[in-house]
Amino acid sequence: MEKKIYINENERIDDLQYKGLKIIQNKNGFCFGIDSILLSDFAKEIKKGSSVIDLGMGTGIISILLSVKTKLSKITGVEIQKQVYEMAEKSIKLNNLENKINIINEDIKNIDKILKKQSYDVVVTNPPYKKMGTGVINKNIEKLISRHEIKADLEDFIKQSAYLLKDKGTIYMVHRPERLIDIIILLKKYNLEPKNIKCVHSNMNEKPNMLLIKAVKNAKSFLKFEKPLYIYTQTGEYTNDILKIYDKINN
Amino acid sequence: MEKKIYINENERIDDLQYKGLKIIQNKNGFCFGIDSILLSDFAKEIKKGSSVIDLGMGTGIISILLSVKTKLSKITGVEIQKQVYEMAEKSIKLNNLENKINIINEDIKNIDKILKKQSYDVVVTNPPYKKMGTGVINKNIEKLISRHEIKADLEDFIKQSAYLLKDKGTIYMVHRPERLIDIIILLKKYNLEPKNIKCVHSNMNEKPNMLLIKAVKNAKSFLKFEKPLYIYTQTGEYTNDILKIYDKINN
Repeated sequence: MEKKIYINENERIDDLQYKGLKIIQNKNGFCFGIDSILLSDFAKEIKKGSSVIDLGMGTGIISILLSVKTKLSKITGVEIQKQVYEMAEKSIKLNNLENKINIINEDIKNIDKILKKQSYDVVVTNPPYKKMGTGVINKNIEKLISRHEIKADLEDFIKQSAYLLKDKGTIYMVHRPERLIDIIILLKKYNLEPKNIKCVHSNMNEKPNMLLIKAVKNAKSFLKFEKPLYIYTQTGEYTNDILKIYDKINN
Repeated sequence: MEKKIYINENERIDDLQYKGLKIIQNKNGFCFGIDSILLSDFAKEIKKGSSVIDLGMGTGIISILLSVKTKLSKITGVEIQKQVYEMAEKSIKLNNLENKINIINEDIKNIDKILKKQSYDVVVTNPPYKKMGTGVINKNIEKLISRHEIKADLEDFIKQSAYLLKDKGTIYMVHRPERLIDIIILLKKYNLEPKNIKCVHSNMNEKPNMLLIKAVKNAKSFLKFEKPLYIYTQTGEYTNDILKIYDKINN
């Protein structure tokens, strides 16, 4: 059966360069970045049968990748912005993932009113990176909400994750290194114990520009720093680690 | 005037491979590692005229290096172990640094009883890395106290640092990555704001095995992750960064 998917004038269909997956994005809005790709890879250990929720899913990139990279049977995505939510809906259809991905158009802050406590094994999240009052404020409201903590801040994301996770449930997050202190303080506040940190560097001579963090609810404290991930070699090519993530060379 | 420095049978004089400096160490005890060298380099921005204290100075390596690497006029070292303290005393004489380094044989936990509150600009510290009950317990008591939190734990070191530091004073610490969560929680508890973190890796393909951390008392929160430091190249030579620290090539 052929499906018809209509895209709006301001939208385009992009190839994810991964197993034929496609994503619909707003030409002028917030487009997915390598952070989403890396987070899906970082979380690829998610086990079959796990109930997974993607908080602030945006256009659905992480949910779409995870539903192909892992054996999970169901993933729920939550997105506050109606227009972005609708793009995700279309992308899910485009990739024939309606049976795996269920999406909710809701504010993260209300999630404890509509979803059951301790009902998920895994949270994945790529929250807005910037505190209000920092960085360049984008005039495009969609980009602004995706990047800045306007609708929900880091504490909302972490608090709701703790609410949704079962005992020993796992949260996977991608964020900026300069927010590490806030992240650790808040994770600990909500009994999410940081277990793994992986620094992502543009190349080996640069400071990290992303952190991948895994925390487990009510776990014992023991942090493991992982091997860093470099995106480019010193000559500007993608590293083998990145090519593996994109499935361009054998794992 | 020639000085006579007697060393005990179990002691030896090692060359620090830096500007002719020497250090007396117990052949069977805890010997300095590259962590002390890296911490002294990390803290080399210390300004002339700063009052500096080295908490848990061991054989005095950090104090000795800092008194040569920086323009500081006075540094105080505190060491609980009598025998280790005495080795530091001899090393200071051996390097003609009696006018710059003043040492105290005291328990860190008592430091608030003998030194004035808010009397230092800078704390440098290389505390014992291991929690009691973790890792291999060394039968040699000197090594044990230097490595494990027997006499004082991380909280004692951080609490006393906060006591000793002036407003906007700085602490430089070297520690293990797996203790990062404790370090951040405790620094924040005592109003020492983490400002810089530098990961040290054996080489670019390994996870970090040391962290260098700088925190400032009562400062605004903004963390900067620095460029990582690799000790060896992929072919097993010292990297240029390390050779610079040892002053083997021009800075």
